[in-house]
Amino acid sequence: MTDLRARAAQLDAADPLRGFIDRFVPAPGVRAYLDGNSLGRPVRTTVGRLGDFVRDDWGTRLIRSWDEGWMDRPFELGDRIAALTLGAAPGQTVVADSTTVLLYKLLHAAAGARADRSEIAIDVTNFPTDRFIAQAVAERHGMTVRWLEADPIAGVGVNEIEEKVGAQTAVVVLSQVDYRSGAVAEVGAITARVKAAGALMLWDLCHSAGVLPVDLDRHGVDLAVGCTYKYLNGGPGSPAFAYVATRHQDALRQPIEGWMGAGDVFAMARDYTPATGMRRFLSGTPPVLGMLAMEDMLDLIEEAGLEAIRTKSVALTSFVVAAADELLPEARLLSPRDAAHRGGHVTLGHPAFEGMLPALWGDGVIPDFRYPDGIRLGLSPLSTTYAEALEGVLAIRAALVG
Amino acid sequence: MTDLRARAAQLDAADPLRGFIDRFVPAPGVRAYLDGNSLGRPVRTTVGRLGDFVRDDWGTRLIRSWDEGWMDRPFELGDRIAALTLGAAPGQTVVADSTTVLLYKLLHAAAGARADRSEIAIDVTNFPTDRFIAQAVAERHGMTVRWLEADPIAGVGVNEIEEKVGAQTAVVVLSQVDYRSGAVAEVGAITARVKAAGALMLWDLCHSAGVLPVDLDRHGVDLAVGCTYKYLNGGPGSPAFAYVATRHQDALRQPIEGWMGAGDVFAMARDYTPATGMRRFLSGTPPVLGMLAMEDMLDLIEEAGLEAIRTKSVALTSFVVAAADELLPEARLLSPRDAAHRGGHVTLGHPAFEGMLPALWGDGVIPDFRYPDGIRLGLSPLSTTYAEALEGVLAIRAALVG
Repeated sequence: MTDLRARAAQLDAADPLRGFIDRFVPAPGVRAYLDGNSLGRPVRTTVGRLGDFVRDDWGTRLIRSWDEGWMDRPFELGDRIAALTLGAAPGQTVVADSTTVLLYKLLHAAAGARADRSEIAIDVTNFPTDRFIAQAVAERHGMTVRWLEADPIAGVGVNEIEEKVGAQTAVVVLSQVDYRSGAVAEVGAITARVKAAGALMLWDLCHSAGVLPVDLDRHGVDLAVGCTYKYLNGGPGSPAFAYVATRHQDALRQPIEGWMGAGDVFAMARDYTPATGMRRFLSGTPPVLGMLAMEDMLDLIEEAGLEAIRTKSVALTSFVVAAADELLPEARLLSPRDAAHRGGHVTLGHPAFEGMLPALWGDGVIPDFRYPDGIRLGLSPLSTTYAEALEGVLAIRAALVG
Repeated sequence: MTDLRARAAQLDAADPLRGFIDRFVPAPGVRAYLDGNSLGRPVRTTVGRLGDFVRDDWGTRLIRSWDEGWMDRPFELGDRIAALTLGAAPGQTVVADSTTVLLYKLLHAAAGARADRSEIAIDVTNFPTDRFIAQAVAERHGMTVRWLEADPIAGVGVNEIEEKVGAQTAVVVLSQVDYRSGAVAEVGAITARVKAAGALMLWDLCHSAGVLPVDLDRHGVDLAVGCTYKYLNGGPGSPAFAYVATRHQDALRQPIEGWMGAGDVFAMARDYTPATGMRRFLSGTPPVLGMLAMEDMLDLIEEAGLEAIRTKSVALTSFVVAAADELLPEARLLSPRDAAHRGGHVTLGHPAFEGMLPALWGDGVIPDFRYPDGIRLGLSPLSTTYAEALEGVLAIRAALVG
């Protein structure tokens, strides 16, 4: 244990991103925040940014601000997320709604564009919203869900795609990083195979945006959605983002046809004509207030660089795996051991974990729990120290062995 | 004109709600804000509330806040809006998404519940989002849209309902207050006739919530949606609300089946089972940040009382109509002359209005424009003085006559 403490101190001292820790709002009484992949911590500048916005923008420019910038924010912010974290050129990403609603829209549109096919494919291990929406959209389009088997730790393999995705597949929905195991899917290889089958590929990037490179354009991805309150620190329930490759935009029609997606928003026409480009994927009034906080985190990501963030992420999760090997031999590692196949979090399994969470939380050690017996350690690279990560593992050990 | 100025001063001096003006964030350079029905002004306490939330709640309690209150916020806030402004008992209102998305969900659910019928009825004068969504949902359900004719000023009459709503009607969508003319529909009489025909009644309350009594329960309304950034001052793009009468909740199934609407949110079950009660109308993660600002306005509404607000609203719009009669004889009154049939805004028509808006806005006089030639004066009772309203009419006169 002494060695681990020394090692943590050493890693923190040598961490080129160490200074970013102080850029976040301090959390008194929190010894280890290990849930940055559920809810990222606010950046200090967000405290003032929101008040300034209320006073100087909303409160002073009032309705004029819609003309002076708010109408473009979903696209400008989308482009910024795309450039800094998604590897996507401008004009393909928009911020709106929630992940669930955007997933519904894109999946509906994708099924409509492949209406001559009969299946939506999704893995059994995907996040509930993804599976529920896939089922609902499939039923609505007279399609069935083709369940892809997935190794609970390694996720969905390319073989499974080869085997189950074919001429009957309309669209495939997968997560780049598994919300439980943290396994990283082979985005390039899988996307290529799905496209070769004539299907559309939709990636859920909730657990990847902001913590590892995504490279949507390079991999020729068709569609993607993701969340901004995890590694993009947009705050509780901040709006989500959707990516639609330029080549598909004008052929896809999403079902929630509201005034903000219409060709001429203020024409008040009788019939709906979708806008060209990404605007057609909007429905209601853009949630401007909810888009502010993430700008502060994007500033930090820009400053740090996504490669450096990924480098620290790999080192952090590797350190936690090593610490768990030593301190929690009773627990099972439910994440890939190879860091190259692991995202920003590490999950450990033990039947006693569920019961110990309230005491840990009360004591300022805050991991997450995932059914049935996983304790999930989310390590947001810019806001987590090695010492803090070790503190978390030590607290879990103390709770486990008494 | 001198008489009008004296009258305005008199009305302001005698206004029992006069003190509320100072509770809003000052807007330097704004001489007359007459667009409170597009975007309500922020309450002063909102400036600090948002920063406090970031520092003390999100930043300190972190993910624990979901258990400590955030999960209940959509329902608690919905109940508060219901009690203060909708005349609805608890357990029937939820805050989520946008008006467009909620309208889509409820209309989809309603059409599904009346799948043996063939029409969705909506008036030709309704707001674009409502008409677009009605058309999209009708098409999706193999139904057609039955267009209700409406007088451009008086709105949809009960006769039109008698004539066109019948055994073929699945659901009727109307706005309580017309977004252009401000006409107030006869909610009680219309709802009764729609229900007598066996159809469901969905009211859009965007331009009524917070400015006049709604009485959903008393009128036996089935469904309603509304906006919180107009007279509820929730800020740009703040989430909307949906009302579903208790008797319908467990029979309606909305289409965007996300994890937050599932019976057990964290069970991560394979199949979607909708929650009981209003939770089933949620889809994605609740937009907590976007729910904060409106609490401050609800505090003011509670303090002032909705009846007093309506009384001032009637006096304000009546004063503006009288001022327009005298100062703008060239303009047509596009709102009902009888205050009992008028909501919180007054619309005047003149071909020159469209061209004069940029200069007015630049000069700190901020009405709205509605196609084709309407200048809309939105008079949010707690944040608008009579003098300010007169200032607006005078500025329009100056722009018109040079």
